[in-house]
Amino acid sequence: MDKQIDVAVIMGSDSDLPTVSESLKLFDKFGIKYSVNIASAHRTSEFVKQCVDNAVANGAKVFVAVAGMSAALPGVVASETILPVIGVPMEGKALAGMDALFSIAQMPPSIPVACVSIGKAGAVNAAILSMEILAVNDKNIADKLFEYRKKMKEKILQKDEKLNKIGYEQYLAEK
Amino acid sequence: MDKQIDVAVIMGSDSDLPTVSESLKLFDKFGIKYSVNIASAHRTSEFVKQCVDNAVANGAKVFVAVAGMSAALPGVVASETILPVIGVPMEGKALAGMDALFSIAQMPPSIPVACVSIGKAGAVNAAILSMEILAVNDKNIADKLFEYRKKMKEKILQKDEKLNKIGYEQYLAEK
Amino acid sequence: MDKQIDVAVIMGSDSDLPTVSESLKLFDKFGIKYSVNIASAHRTSEFVKQCVDNAVANGAKVFVAVAGMSAALPGVVASETILPVIGVPMEGKALAGMDALFSIAQMPPSIPVACVSIGKAGAVNAAILSMEILAVNDKNIADKLFEYRKKMKEKILQKDEKLNKIGYEQYLAEK
Amino acid sequence: MDKQIDVAVIMGSDSDLPTVSESLKLFDKFGIKYSVNIASAHRTSEFVKQCVDNAVANGAKVFVAVAGMSAALPGVVASETILPVIGVPMEGKALAGMDALFSIAQMPPSIPVACVSIGKAGAVNAAILSMEILAVNDKNIADKLFEYRKKMKEKILQKDEKLNKIGYEQYLAEK
Amino acid sequence: MDKQIDVAVIMGSDSDLPTVSESLKLFDKFGIKYSVNIASAHRTSEFVKQCVDNAVANGAKVFVAVAGMSAALPGVVASETILPVIGVPMEGKALAGMDALFSIAQMPPSIPVACVSIGKAGAVNAAILSMEILAVNDKNIADKLFEYRKKMKEKILQKDEKLNKIGYEQYLAEK
Amino acid sequence: MDKQIDVAVIMGSDSDLPTVSESLKLFDKFGIKYSVNIASAHRTSEFVKQCVDNAVANGAKVFVAVAGMSAALPGVVASETILPVIGVPMEGKALAGMDALFSIAQMPPSIPVACVSIGKAGAVNAAILSMEILAVNDKNIADKLFEYRKKMKEKILQKDEKLNKIGYEQYLAEK
Amino acid sequence: MDKQIDVAVIMGSDSDLPTVSESLKLFDKFGIKYSVNIASAHRTSEFVKQCVDNAVANGAKVFVAVAGMSAALPGVVASETILPVIGVPMEGKALAGMDALFSIAQMPPSIPVACVSIGKAGAVNAAILSMEILAVNDKNIADKLFEYRKKMKEKILQKDEKLNKIGYEQYLAEK
Amino acid sequence: MDKQIDVAVIMGSDSDLPTVSESLKLFDKFGIKYSVNIASAHRTSEFVKQCVDNAVANGAKVFVAVAGMSAALPGVVASETILPVIGVPMEGKALAGMDALFSIAQMPPSIPVACVSIGKAGAVNAAILSMEILAVNDKNIADKLFEYRKKMKEKILQKDEKLNKIGYEQYLAEK
Repeated sequence: MDKQIDVAVIMGSDSDLPTVSESLKLFDKFGIKYSVNIASAHRTSEFVKQCVDNAVANGAKVFVAVAGMSAALPGVVASETILPVIGVPMEGKALAGMDALFSIAQMPPSIPVACVSIGKAGAVNAAILSMEILAVNDKNIADKLFEYRKKMKEKILQKDEKLNKIGYEQYLAEK
Repeated sequence: MDKQIDVAVIMGSDSDLPTVSESLKLFDKFGIKYSVNIASAHRTSEFVKQCVDNAVANGAKVFVAVAGMSAALPGVVASETILPVIGVPMEGKALAGMDALFSIAQMPPSIPVACVSIGKAGAVNAAILSMEILAVNDKNIADKLFEYRKKMKEKILQKDEKLNKIGYEQYLAEK
Repeated sequence: MDKQIDVAVIMGSDSDLPTVSESLKLFDKFGIKYSVNIASAHRTSEFVKQCVDNAVANGAKVFVAVAGMSAALPGVVASETILPVIGVPMEGKALAGMDALFSIAQMPPSIPVACVSIGKAGAVNAAILSMEILAVNDKNIADKLFEYRKKMKEKILQKDEKLNKIGYEQYLAEK
Repeated sequence: MDKQIDVAVIMGSDSDLPTVSESLKLFDKFGIKYSVNIASAHRTSEFVKQCVDNAVANGAKVFVAVAGMSAALPGVVASETILPVIGVPMEGKALAGMDALFSIAQMPPSIPVACVSIGKAGAVNAAILSMEILAVNDKNIADKLFEYRKKMKEKILQKDEKLNKIGYEQYLAEK
Repeated sequence: MDKQIDVAVIMGSDSDLPTVSESLKLFDKFGIKYSVNIASAHRTSEFVKQCVDNAVANGAKVFVAVAGMSAALPGVVASETILPVIGVPMEGKALAGMDALFSIAQMPPSIPVACVSIGKAGAVNAAILSMEILAVNDKNIADKLFEYRKKMKEKILQKDEKLNKIGYEQYLAEK
Repeated sequence: MDKQIDVAVIMGSDSDLPTVSESLKLFDKFGIKYSVNIASAHRTSEFVKQCVDNAVANGAKVFVAVAGMSAALPGVVASETILPVIGVPMEGKALAGMDALFSIAQMPPSIPVACVSIGKAGAVNAAILSMEILAVNDKNIADKLFEYRKKMKEKILQKDEKLNKIGYEQYLAEK
Repeated sequence: MDKQIDVAVIMGSDSDLPTVSESLKLFDKFGIKYSVNIASAHRTSEFVKQCVDNAVANGAKVFVAVAGMSAALPGVVASETILPVIGVPMEGKALAGMDALFSIAQMPPSIPVACVSIGKAGAVNAAILSMEILAVNDKNIADKLFEYRKKMKEKILQKDEKLNKIGYEQYLAEK
Repeated sequence: MDKQIDVAVIMGSDSDLPTVSESLKLFDKFGIKYSVNIASAHRTSEFVKQCVDNAVANGAKVFVAVAGMSAALPGVVASETILPVIGVPMEGKALAGMDALFSIAQMPPSIPVACVSIGKAGAVNAAILSMEILAVNDKNIADKLFEYRKKMKEKILQKDEKLNKIGYEQYLAEK
């Protein structure tokens, strides 16, 4: 935890890792330096604080906190720092993911958390949003984000072209 | 905060006080010694810890934590103590109170919070549940709880009697 | 049902047993004496009452009631005793578990139920919460709860250490 | 409670009476003999049983049970009798009435409750449904129900006629 | 459709039949004469009316209507008869079954539908509720319902006895 | 009901008229010929059919059906015609408008209803959508819709200009 | 994209194609000329505009837009054209499909989207609703829709006949 | 719109201004330069794009987009820029604010929006989160945020002190 980092990722449980890895893969791809920790807001509250302090000491500029159910982690991180904190709600088994979404979005006035989508889509979005925040002052990351968007757009246009070329039945068959 | 207490009540904001006072009135009525604090999980996280430590030092046996929206307070208190923690969800303006209810009930495995009803009904129930916990080892409180239930029952029976005596139209008119 | 017990566990149907066993395993592990019954609030209302009376006679200090759907059991138990009653909502097939959660948490003022999380997380939490209540007057159980929390914390710290040692890709591969 | 009755109405609290009176007014209008009681499932469980037994002894053929929040009353009544039980969910302050609706509708297999609409619409529907059940074997009530439907239909047709005669602006102004 | 019947069962689609068969099996077991039809409220509105008229002509005393999604069938049946109509909400793929539940329970004032649980539990409850309505004037059915409840109760007591005899681990292993 | 019309508006109850009038005002403004009826799907099912037949006979090209709670009206209208049917969900007192929204949107495959927003916003949108459908073959209406959009856009731009001229405090003060 | 078309179908992602193909199969069956595009509202906003402009230039009379989660596509299409726009909400993994349903139905006043059912039922309904709109001025399509409804009705009647001939057990066995 | 700005605020309608002003007051207090626009995603889509382009040209580093109901605005802004976009869901009349919350949080993967709390709490949080993002590279703003948190904390501590000094009854009386 002593290397210089830009983003600090904290997840509430290692069962969140398959989701969190969607963020990490994107950071790896974009060359973003990050730390990653497993630290439960309720079971290891002091370690959460320590992770936050370490991350700040190591230069972190953004936090990504991933949690399910009561999902207190993003808010607890936000209470320990004035750096921007992005919260990713996990789906959970019951309540269709509404519990974590409500917990993370409905922060009381003055301690914000930036809530993104539930589950893997949210892990992707947390990574992109982190980099958008970094890109505010880093033209290099901004350029990569423009490039990423451009490629994403091209991929969709290619899919559209393919669909219009081979027809929907063939397209479905090839999937 | 240096008197001996049985129950420690913590609310996230003084806007919760009209609700919380439902608990306090019951404690006063039952002669339960309590402390009461305003301490936000997100805005004064250290003070929450301090309130918990003080309460434990002063002999608290149960916690009542009241919070709305993301409602992290009960879980944060629970993470700092192995004493039983009762959580009261506030109604809030949006989401019909579901946000606080989900946050407080859906604690991750091994750090429980005892979630009661939303709003004033919950504040009453938190007080009664606290006293039920105290009564496990205090015959005096147990007797008072039996008495309270008995009176409550009698009150309903009297209402039933009145309704059957004067009829529903008169009953409604007298309300 | 004639042995001395500390906790009385009642489930509405034997289909709840895989969930309930999460509580029982913890009681076994902590050396807590408990009774366990299958007793439906709607189908065997008298037997529920009998279970409650037996449990009280055998020294029970806390009840755990597990039920799904309309989930009346915890409230019915609470109406028969002034001992603390913990309710565990089952997930059910429809409504994403909201039905049982609302039924158990939304008790009317003065007859509280301590609602915990939905499903297996709730069964774990009901066991821990029971023991927290017992621990109010039992230093031995309190010590075990501290020990349990400590181990749980260490387990998370070890996972965090492992993750930081082998990296997320290897960690995921080993799962 | 010693007169012969056809329908037994039980409400969980006298705060439900303004809603319940919608049922009672209809029974009065149709000449249906009924009993009405205030009896809380959780606070006066024995009195609920006694109300059910009395009602059965006095010839009741249908039960109407009205309750809010956790709304156990209809299910508790249903567990004490094989007569049809109609449940009316009250609106409550939080959760937009979903709590009582879910509790009343989601009864476990084999102990049914006939759940009707939330609030005053439900109180009207509980009265009509009661009378539909009585009408299965009472041509007199059946005739009155046909007459009621006919009048209701005519009232709507008259409103439609009025609207088409005076136009919507005038209609709104006269309301 | 020309035999004498007591209960008329109508389902909106033959995809509901696995659920509906839970009702039919109970009617078969209890010796209740019934008709069963597939008739969509939206796709065969006239046939629904015809099914209702036929059923009434053949002596039906109760209707059971089963539908999912927008679930208009129970209400449409109720609009065509003053006989009691029981509605069973199907689960559906989206919305966790809330759509059909809300549609069936939330009937406007004066045209009630007796809404029961979602899915198979509801199909069982619709059958029992039908028979409870028939039993109001049929001592034979009433006796069978008492017998059914008695057996159901015994079955639970036996399960409870087995659980207490062999212990939860063995019980789970034998399932 | 014998004039030639383009749009047929049907509401389930005259209590919906304040909402429905938002549609009618727009039709008046755009010079669209319409019929308007009060006809309950459940209480006057034959009259609904008659309204649909009349409207078709009088040249109606689109239906607007407005209903709350179980909200069967739009679906019942759709089952009687192959003309496009637009459904407007009313808010209701309980369930936050979800009941009518789910009923109207969740039509079974092959009998569509075009569901728009809840309440007054929906009444406006139903009128505009009706006219968009008429405009498919009526250049005159299309021109008016373009004009309407243009004015609407200008109105927003003027508000934006005013806000930027006088500042938000003054803007709020003038409201 | 240069052929003359009647309906323009746009989906937000090629993962929606299995659902969308339900619409396309119906258009193929009815001989409706259509275009189909993959164009994300958020990732290719200009391409969405271009698809709309192309479709309008090629004679499109109706749009079908399919999207999940935040589901902005139907509204974005509607903001670019005064032609009727039908929105199909996808189910998604979390929130039980409520997110897309709310986004698509709850359009602000004056820019309507015609929201249909969630998922495949919605894709079928979007196709039928498109053709109902086209049929307003195309007797040929109207005739086909009448024929389609007739066949659909016959299919249900045949299923009903089969069920009544072979009984429910045999019917279930043959499925 | 030609001054240099740090934050660009866009609201969907001037009815959102009382909520939005909570953000603006904070920006004024902190000395943050901002632009503010009324621009509807659906009614003035080109103007939204123009506002985004202007803001970028004038140096904006963060966007705050406020919208209710279908709430497409934040996502539309996010699709036009790689700067971080914060979305504030408005409460609306129906659906308890769930519609806007789901629309804003549930963005598809790769185009994130940072969703904050519903209504005024969200407007406060959007302002703070904006400044946290600016503070990543602006020590002056960071210092002000630390100061703000410190004062907020002190205010709570003072309230707690007052409550403990005068008691809850007096505290309530003085409110």
